[in-house]
Amino acid sequence: MSRIRFALAQINPVVGDIEGNSALIRDAVRDAANAHASVVALPEMALTGYPIEDLAFSSDFVAESEAGIARLAAQLADDGFGDVAVVVGFIRRAEAPSFGGAIAHNSLAVLVNGRVDSTYDKQHLPNYSVFDEQRVFVPGRQTHALVIGGVKVGFLICEDLWRDEGPVQTLAEQGLDVVVVINASPFDRTKDDNRFPLLERRAREFNAPVTYVNLVGGQDDLIFDGDSAVVDANGAVLARATRFDSTILFHDIVGTAGGNGIAVRERNLNLLAPVITPDKDELDDIWSALVLGVRDYVEKNRFPSVTLGLSGGIDSAVCAVLAADAIGAERVFGVSMPSQWSSDHSKGDAEDLADRIGCHYDVQPIAGLVGPFEEQLGLQGLAAENIQARARGMILMALSNQHGHLVLTTGNKSEVAVGYCTMYGDTVGGYAPLKDVPKTLVWELAEWRNRIAVERGETPPIPENSITKPPSAELRPGQTDQDSLPPYDVLDAILERLIDRRESIATITESGFDRSVVERIAHLVSISEWKRRQGAIGPRISRMAFGRERRLPITVRRTSL
Amino acid sequence: MSRIRFALAQINPVVGDIEGNSALIRDAVRDAANAHASVVALPEMALTGYPIEDLAFSSDFVAESEAGIARLAAQLADDGFGDVAVVVGFIRRAEAPSFGGAIAHNSLAVLVNGRVDSTYDKQHLPNYSVFDEQRVFVPGRQTHALVIGGVKVGFLICEDLWRDEGPVQTLAEQGLDVVVVINASPFDRTKDDNRFPLLERRAREFNAPVTYVNLVGGQDDLIFDGDSAVVDANGAVLARATRFDSTILFHDIVGTAGGNGIAVRERNLNLLAPVITPDKDELDDIWSALVLGVRDYVEKNRFPSVTLGLSGGIDSAVCAVLAADAIGAERVFGVSMPSQWSSDHSKGDAEDLADRIGCHYDVQPIAGLVGPFEEQLGLQGLAAENIQARARGMILMALSNQHGHLVLTTGNKSEVAVGYCTMYGDTVGGYAPLKDVPKTLVWELAEWRNRIAVERGETPPIPENSITKPPSAELRPGQTDQDSLPPYDVLDAILERLIDRRESIATITESGFDRSVVERIAHLVSISEWKRRQGAIGPRISRMAFGRERRLPITVRRTSL
Repeated sequence: MSRIRFALAQINPVVGDIEGNSALIRDAVRDAANAHASVVALPEMALTGYPIEDLAFSSDFVAESEAGIARLAAQLADDGFGDVAVVVGFIRRAEAPSFGGAIAHNSLAVLVNGRVDSTYDKQHLPNYSVFDEQRVFVPGRQTHALVIGGVKVGFLICEDLWRDEGPVQTLAEQGLDVVVVINASPFDRTKDDNRFPLLERRAREFNAPVTYVNLVGGQDDLIFDGDSAVVDANGAVLARATRFDSTILFHDIVGTAGGNGIAVRERNLNLLAPVITPDKDELDDIWSALVLGVRDYVEKNRFPSVTLGLSGGIDSAVCAVLAADAIGAERVFGVSMPSQWSSDHSKGDAEDLADRIGCHYDVQPIAGLVGPFEEQLGLQGLAAENIQARARGMILMALSNQHGHLVLTTGNKSEVAVGYCTMYGDTVGGYAPLKDVPKTLVWELAEWRNRIAVERGETPPIPENSITKPPSAELRPGQTDQDSLPPYDVLDAILERLIDRRESIATITESGFDRSVVERIAHLVSISEWKRRQGAIGPRISRMAFGRERRLPITVRRTSL
Repeated sequence: MSRIRFALAQINPVVGDIEGNSALIRDAVRDAANAHASVVALPEMALTGYPIEDLAFSSDFVAESEAGIARLAAQLADDGFGDVAVVVGFIRRAEAPSFGGAIAHNSLAVLVNGRVDSTYDKQHLPNYSVFDEQRVFVPGRQTHALVIGGVKVGFLICEDLWRDEGPVQTLAEQGLDVVVVINASPFDRTKDDNRFPLLERRAREFNAPVTYVNLVGGQDDLIFDGDSAVVDANGAVLARATRFDSTILFHDIVGTAGGNGIAVRERNLNLLAPVITPDKDELDDIWSALVLGVRDYVEKNRFPSVTLGLSGGIDSAVCAVLAADAIGAERVFGVSMPSQWSSDHSKGDAEDLADRIGCHYDVQPIAGLVGPFEEQLGLQGLAAENIQARARGMILMALSNQHGHLVLTTGNKSEVAVGYCTMYGDTVGGYAPLKDVPKTLVWELAEWRNRIAVERGETPPIPENSITKPPSAELRPGQTDQDSLPPYDVLDAILERLIDRRESIATITESGFDRSVVERIAHLVSISEWKRRQGAIGPRISRMAFGRERRLPITVRRTSL
């Protein structure tokens, strides 16, 4: 009977940056070993970043991953941690390519004594929701288990754990001391409701603890929340990491295999204080996810700063606060771009917001820019309204060209769904923080963020007026969103059923909504697909985000989905 | 021994339009039956259109497809063709959903005597290149063969034919008289080089003729070329249909099964004149594909007309001619938008083009629109250049808002690859006819199209000057594309290796290109991914089109792929 310490290191790699990610891994192993860990597990594809999409077809990149993992093993030994077993995700070349041309396995390596001891290839490749792994990877065929420091360890990669058949079954028959699952499992609002019951069920099936380590960080539209955990053989949560941040979780495992297998450094283990990070408010989770999404898009793409239009409305206010929380207000450049139709309160609320959060603030009126277009082209009605939004987009892009800012586009999910936006106008930008946040949730988040500020003794960042006033695009006198759309609580309820739950018009109507309203919304969603295809990416928080999770034709003669 | 006539009806359905597609199918069956056909085969998913993407997750749509196929069977009988066997693609509900939530099979129905005689579910689901069928469909498990009018017929759906294992093997063991393959197989420049050798090989393996019927038409970025064919048991092509157009191909098949199976109307068969449409010039095929792509995007989305900027350059000239060939010059609205940097020849060439093709022509100078932005924002350099392109985009969108035009964006594949375009400027538009056409191919197409015109005794549509002058964005005095980019023959050669062939920088350099040039191009391709994600769709003609065929992260710290 031996007892050794496992460390679960949830790190935040950058896709493609094998060298940088190796450095993150070495730092994590050093920290874990210094806390007496003998086994350190890191997430799925920690070496390459995840998802790499079609980069998996690059022979060079696969070779770099294989060379990178060997070099990492040697470096860890040079660092003095050769006698620590390091379990880490990478990709490696498959013996034969798939019919579709995939050349690589999504794999795990066990590094010890300066070399790659063994590897395991993911057997179940998810190909639904946001995942395209059957497109880009070759499935593995062999289950893998090892004795490390007297502990019988079974290995799984992410989707393997979710399927009843295959490696889960094989491992359950082997009388293991622990199962290590490495993951790249993206956040959505409901993820915990599925993840923890699964861990608990599997631990009971294995009759062994399950240690689960997940990526953290933003990668384009996906947010990885970490949430690494240890669940014991009875299904009880023994340890749970902080979410949305890099951290290491420790747990001691008792081995039954005696002195066989891989030898690791013996440690004098002090008693481990159990870390079980409590569940937080859902709004807190969502806010953290959005902040992480903005921060990582900015930092991983090396933008010095962001700019966005401040209209005085709720969407731009929440985006500005998210950006300030993500990268600091001193890197946020707000621009008020009033027109002749902008109300005094709009201008005042925009300035008030900038004052509250302390970001840069500029005013660029658009009347002198829009007038020449209207006159030369004789524009009226919708065409004239759109010119206003497009002049604002041009201003923001010009500022981006001059100063290197990333432009944030402030549209929310409700608008994106029904196409309530001007293409090449308010849709301009590289990242859309609220793209997956329905309008009603934008309000909830605003109130939550102000409440938190009060609890912390800070100034609530969002002007009360921006929360309470009726939403308006202010493209013509007295316009409000509800001239064109049903009230947002009705709209969002219909959209949630139509998009997230894929309910039919008939089903939605039966549950009490007006048929003509439902039909009109479904029609708007359908004809706006071309707008969404050209839209900026933004952080996914739902289980049906626009973009890679919901793929529909533009050309289609059918309104409902 | 019986002898009956098979008809292969390549039709052009619209995704989602079950009623409209049923009407197309009924018309085709009528025409085929009037030409004495006893069996009519229509393409994969002819009833629903293809690809339907995530519409396959809609329970309603699956139910509509099943109801639609039953109704179609009844209608065909009502039309007087109950004793014709009709083989047609549709989707139907699977017994159990896949783990990823797919609920439908990609299926084929045999309709006869007013009802669905039997169905077959596609077994091999492609999930590479532009295909996501493992995402959206459940694979079938059963091979299917029937005797129809004394002829033993085996059935396959598209990808089934491409795989050596599975249904191809099972059918080869059954001593069939003919194999019917229904397809939705998109065009690319090299498709014929693969398709016909495969048909010939399979026919020999089956020791029976193979009848191959394919969709025709444009669906978003995919172009289906038809090219339906019959290959005999020795691998000889017996019949081949016109490409890029709806048509019916006939072939008489001799049966060995006697009077068993499904009875069909007996016909007095006259001798069939063999139709073997000859292969055309590759440029002719590409031009036809682009014209079909533009036409079907316009017509299926019900745009009255298109507009585009005419710069006097080659890209806009070719786009205008494509549009005129697709929908008629009277529905094409060209706009010249000269700036202070526009040369006299640019304005002259644009007007000359419009005169030659007879499209509408308008001049909208941009000086008065750009000046206020430059002054208010103090713009210089790149920011000022981009404002010019964006003012042009605003003009085109304003005209679209006023008149309902579809805006065509004229960028070519070389520009799209390296990001040589202004976001929200020249990228503005709903459809990009040249998106998958490298610059050097644009020139080839222009010369080919002019040559064809001369052969037909028509005015060459493209001004010679637009073909011969050095390409320039004309955003500053004396600018040419080659200030920023290598010569286009070098650029396109590097891009073809980097993108289409996925060669590494090292491999490309070894074949004789300057390493620093290759590295810079690879870097530009990588950092332009965000631009491509927000770009308009356009017709695919290569085997590595940007969009659904090449999926890469925006955030990535690695330049080459």
